[in-house]
Amino acid sequence: MIDVDVSRAEKFLSEENLHQAKVTAADALKTVRQQNGEGAEWLGWRSLLDDPNDAILEQLDRLGTAIREEADVFLVCGIGGSYLGARAVIEALSPFFNQEAPEIIYVGHHMSGGYLQELIEYLDTPKVDGEPKSVYCNVISKSGTTLETALSFRKIRNWMGNTYPDSLQQRIICTTSSEGGALNKLIDEYDFQKFVIPDDVGGRFSVLTPVGLFPMAVAGIDIRSLFYGAVTEYEKLENEAEILINYAAVKYALYQKGKQMDVLTSFEPELSGLCGWLQQLLGESEGKKQKGMLPVTASYSTDLHSLGQFMQDGSRTMMETFITVQKSDTSFTVEETESNNDELNYLAGKSFHDINSKARKGTISAHTEGGVPCISVNIEVLNASQVGAFIYFYELFTAVYCYCLGVNPFTQPGVENYKKRMYKLLDK
Amino acid sequence: MIDVDVSRAEKFLSEENLHQAKVTAADALKTVRQQNGEGAEWLGWRSLLDDPNDAILEQLDRLGTAIREEADVFLVCGIGGSYLGARAVIEALSPFFNQEAPEIIYVGHHMSGGYLQELIEYLDTPKVDGEPKSVYCNVISKSGTTLETALSFRKIRNWMGNTYPDSLQQRIICTTSSEGGALNKLIDEYDFQKFVIPDDVGGRFSVLTPVGLFPMAVAGIDIRSLFYGAVTEYEKLENEAEILINYAAVKYALYQKGKQMDVLTSFEPELSGLCGWLQQLLGESEGKKQKGMLPVTASYSTDLHSLGQFMQDGSRTMMETFITVQKSDTSFTVEETESNNDELNYLAGKSFHDINSKARKGTISAHTEGGVPCISVNIEVLNASQVGAFIYFYELFTAVYCYCLGVNPFTQPGVENYKKRMYKLLDK
Repeated sequence: MIDVDVSRAEKFLSEENLHQAKVTAADALKTVRQQNGEGAEWLGWRSLLDDPNDAILEQLDRLGTAIREEADVFLVCGIGGSYLGARAVIEALSPFFNQEAPEIIYVGHHMSGGYLQELIEYLDTPKVDGEPKSVYCNVISKSGTTLETALSFRKIRNWMGNTYPDSLQQRIICTTSSEGGALNKLIDEYDFQKFVIPDDVGGRFSVLTPVGLFPMAVAGIDIRSLFYGAVTEYEKLENEAEILINYAAVKYALYQKGKQMDVLTSFEPELSGLCGWLQQLLGESEGKKQKGMLPVTASYSTDLHSLGQFMQDGSRTMMETFITVQKSDTSFTVEETESNNDELNYLAGKSFHDINSKARKGTISAHTEGGVPCISVNIEVLNASQVGAFIYFYELFTAVYCYCLGVNPFTQPGVENYKKRMYKLLDK
Repeated sequence: MIDVDVSRAEKFLSEENLHQAKVTAADALKTVRQQNGEGAEWLGWRSLLDDPNDAILEQLDRLGTAIREEADVFLVCGIGGSYLGARAVIEALSPFFNQEAPEIIYVGHHMSGGYLQELIEYLDTPKVDGEPKSVYCNVISKSGTTLETALSFRKIRNWMGNTYPDSLQQRIICTTSSEGGALNKLIDEYDFQKFVIPDDVGGRFSVLTPVGLFPMAVAGIDIRSLFYGAVTEYEKLENEAEILINYAAVKYALYQKGKQMDVLTSFEPELSGLCGWLQQLLGESEGKKQKGMLPVTASYSTDLHSLGQFMQDGSRTMMETFITVQKSDTSFTVEETESNNDELNYLAGKSFHDINSKARKGTISAHTEGGVPCISVNIEVLNASQVGAFIYFYELFTAVYCYCLGVNPFTQPGVENYKKRMYKLLDK
């Protein structure tokens, strides 16, 4: 269950403004539920939780587990909503220094020739025991024509065709739309395995479809727990959404008051990816009609040593959102040393988790006093089920908050602009 | 030689505003040169280029090379200015998939107990050939009491003491102030090797001292080329700094016009770390007296698929800075395929570098037309010498731009605020 503490942000708002914003947010939630807002044809991220498809979960899990047992390297070839969700969850729930195969490598998320060339050299290099690497690839693209992904996939596909002439068909798994598009043509050509992206789910809302779930399954994440964590949060919020309404109201009222940026941060470095996923979810949904607060990511306490000065004393244009984990392992503690030359013995016996929590509390207190409205979004414990709940909570939050702003949460018309110019320069 | 194109940003400014800003920027540069501004006691990052100390470069290079030959893992233990510069340069100039020892691992940059515990487990795990790992550690801290670094270093030092009882003294290298502070006490206790951080160089301006140069040397970077690239840029800018003055003037005038954020980005993923270094350099220098533009980092084209919508159509509060590399390897090209099912044959024979450059040009054109002032900062070719030039260029730029704003570029009083509260919560 996701909990939100807005008490340190509310006090920057008048009672009147906050009350108005709450009325607006409650209406926005109704609009989502009644499916009568702009973009209502894109609400598939709700219906898939309302009526879970266990057969697909089973299929994803079975193939994911089989590849996990066989692969040395698993390539996730996608960009934006096609990989940010999977990466976020895999980073949040996997060890920092993962020594178990398969190694997960992201590709198709930019057009660096150097990266792609060196990746292929790396894949070509035998393992330490002299055996060739066993490589699988999941390419994820609704249209199949997103340039970064399609170009990288052409290179990877050619390399894999040369390297694994007899097993190419098993080694490439496509996640794409039910029909149409370039990937479906390649599936017809090569007979690749396929997972379907529902037509009514947009890229940044697709993490609980095969887009996100399949790479997670290969990485060893319990995707059933994750998915049903989201289902539970969905059911909870259908009955009672006061926390979410208040949160959307406070953020909306802060925007109305002139806040220009929302710095999304956590004191847990493994949640950096989740902040990155959230940055797309919010930014691409709200950044329209010259509106919105730019979502900026930071990782604390690391970035307090680069952005902390600005957060404390720079232009007062931002709010801050802290993603926190309430319960954590406290067995890793500071040891005593005899000389105490580093003067840290006063912390001996304390857990790193406890010290890190105090750093977070000190930061929130200092930034609030410095004029930054701070909101805490709390995950009780970091596991698949809670991360699933977090994902749905923010999907619904984003839709509600965007309807408050008066923008369609589900389109991204501005993204086409640079593509048009790029294609013109490329003589397409 | 660093070149800057401000033509697409200037047109958002009136001639009068720009002229005024140029006068202010030229004065600010004089203030730096005449050493009569606030914080003039912190100009050591200039004097060390004015009078290069080849003996130290030689010493850093010799020890760095020796450790490079011996180590499996090299730990860089520091936070903020103590590691961002080294990481930036190492990422920019090393292969993406580095298969050569030593593996460089950063630690001491947050207080995640999970990270530290798993790191130690990883260090404890033998290599694939069954041999134990050979680990070296460079701890970097002017005071030695920065909590994240000091706590991590206590853990690492204890683990290394147990693991390498006979060679601990050679395996730990301290970079710290000439005298005083907790690290110097530990040096006295253990007889660790030491490099000195000059007293007149602050953390975020310290990349061209042993702080940055030693980890780079271990990573195999040509630190002499890097340092003398900076020296050449220094000498050039002492004679002729019109490009830098114009750039500072345009950025300052855009700030005066109400721009709240500067999105620092590159289409080369290996420059992400350099954008992170720049984020600290600018943000911690300018974010004072409730002034400054928040520096935000992005990596394109990746983040066009998350932030692109907002950059094109969201609130018009930002400017954008593109770090570009002009010349690059163009031998890695798109192949033709027979079926052309992905419809990319129109790009066959084109290099990835060329396609990526067109994406950049398309983006700059689209964002400019969307109302975002765009500046390009151009590195001719990505090598150590040019990166050195880039570093000094931005150090001087930051000082000049901050004097335009009327803030002391070299202090960070706001950073103490959260620390005070944290220490109080920790009963220090």
